This record gives sequence, structure tokens and C-alpha cells, in this order.
Amino acid sequence: MEQRVSLITLGVADVSRARTFYEGLGWRGQEVAGTVFFQAGGLALVLWGRDELARDGGIDDEPAGGFGGVALAQNVRSPEEVDAVVAAAERAGATVTRPPATTFYGGYAGYFTDPDGHVWEIAHNPGFTLTDDGSLILPDFGTP
Amino acid sequence: MEQRVSLITLGVADVSRARTFYEGLGWRGQEVAGTVFFQAGGLALVLWGRDELARDGGIDDEPAGGFGGVALAQNVRSPEEVDAVVAAAERAGATVTRPPATTFYGGYAGYFTDPDGHVWEIAHNPGFTLTDDGSLILPDFGTP
Repeated sequence: MEQRVSLITLGVADVSRARTFYEGLGWRGQEVAGTVFFQAGGLALVLWGRDELARDGGIDDEPAGGFGGVALAQNVRSPEEVDAVVAAAERAGATVTRPPATTFYGGYAGYFTDPDGHVWEIAHNPGFTLTDDGSLILPDFGTP
Repeated sequence: MEQRVSLITLGVADVSRARTFYEGLGWRGQEVAGTVFFQAGGLALVLWGRDELARDGGIDDEPAGGFGGVALAQNVRSPEEVDAVVAAAERAGATVTRPPATTFYGGYAGYFTDPDGHVWEIAHNPGFTLTDDGSLILPDFGTP
């Protein structure tokens, strides 16, 4: 299996509500048959009804009841940009679960959840490289 | 907020078990202070204790109790490659929740869950472009 990800699909209760939220953040997507696709660098972020996603994957669509265990992050270029993006998300309807603050690794980050509870971190980590096209390149940590 | 994702963090019960699973799929990562980082194209996939991830994000770490509502996908270049990757995942300890089969959009896909229940789809979708470096490029669907 190659070491890459092509799609991140967020199962949502209401695709229109979720699309409005992400478009409120400035994202622009395309809707096809009730599914919204956002090109995001070399992958696509997809919004789809969580019942349909569960059915498609052969997964029981039990109520989530808590933390699903996945967090997406967007790394940005400065602490000020962390503040600006978290504030914009809150204006768009996000719930800020951790206001931006310094992190244990010497960075600065905040977290919010989208209207379906999906977790996003906005982070400035001076140890990770962000290329001009927004790709994140890990350092060589010197560990196996 | 820019339209991109830098990190996908999977909260896991046992980082070593999860690392062994992904390395069994052929992925190679680096571990730093109990966190494992895999470079995956222009982002990093990260394995971290779900309790620590929840605490970091200010999220209640309630038992997941069902489908967390997120699916990751890897698109591949042929139906045969879907079969091969899903079979390799099963050998590495995955649970196949939907054996590979044709899809409603004219492709071919299967789903599995990793040892923590995180959902992966392996898909061949002739309508999406995969570049030589593995980036996925959405078509212009001609819809808003």
C-alpha cells in the first residue's frame, strides 16, 4: 500500500449545512449528487451524509456518542495566522474547544469543531516545513 | 482559511500496535515522544494516543461507541490494485467491512478498518486523475 491519502470524507448530518460552514471559511467546492468535493492540495476533502458513508463502507452508523478519534490539522505560517483562522472559524459557526495557545513542542495552536463535531487544529509549528504550495514536509527527526 | 490539510491525526489506543499495523502495510514512519509521523504526499498522517489527542484538543475523550464519521481513502490505478491492497491490509490485521466490489459511480472499491476502527476505503475511480506523484485531482464536474 502506497504511503498517501487521496480523500478525507467527513460524514455529516446535513450536507448543505456543512457546505455552508466550509464555504464560510472561504473554501470553494463542487456538489455532485448530494456530495461536496473540495480540492485541498493533492487530495480532496469530501462532505457526504454520514448514513450514506456508513452504508457505503459496511459500517454500523451508530450514534457517534463522543470523540471519533480523528483530528485534521492545517499548519499555517505564523501564530497570528492561527489566531485569525480560529477567529474566522468561530464567526463561521465553529465551536472553539481550545483557544489558541503555546504548545508543548514550542508552537502555537488552537482547536475547533465543525457543526458535526469534526475536529480541526490550526497550528504554527516552526519545526515543520510548509512549502509555497502549502505542502507540509516533516523534518528528519533522527529517530527510527 | 486556506483550502488544504496538513496533518491527519488518528487517535489510537496503543501507538505501538497501530504503528505495527501501518508498517505491516509497508508504510515507514518516525516516532517522536510516543507519536508516529508518516509523510504521505504533501501531508503527514500521525498516530497518537487518543487520550492525549483529546486532551490536547480540549475534547471529551468519551468512548467512541460507533462510527466516528470519518473515512480516509486511497485511490489506486486499477481494480486489481484495489484487490491487492485490501488483501494486504487484511493480512496485516485489518477488518474488511466491505469486500471490493463495483461502485455506484462506475468504479471499484473496498473498505477496511484499522485496529482502532479507523475507516479506510481503497478505490479505483476512473473519473479522478491520479498524478505520477500520487496526488488526486478532481475533475471539473460542471456544477457549482
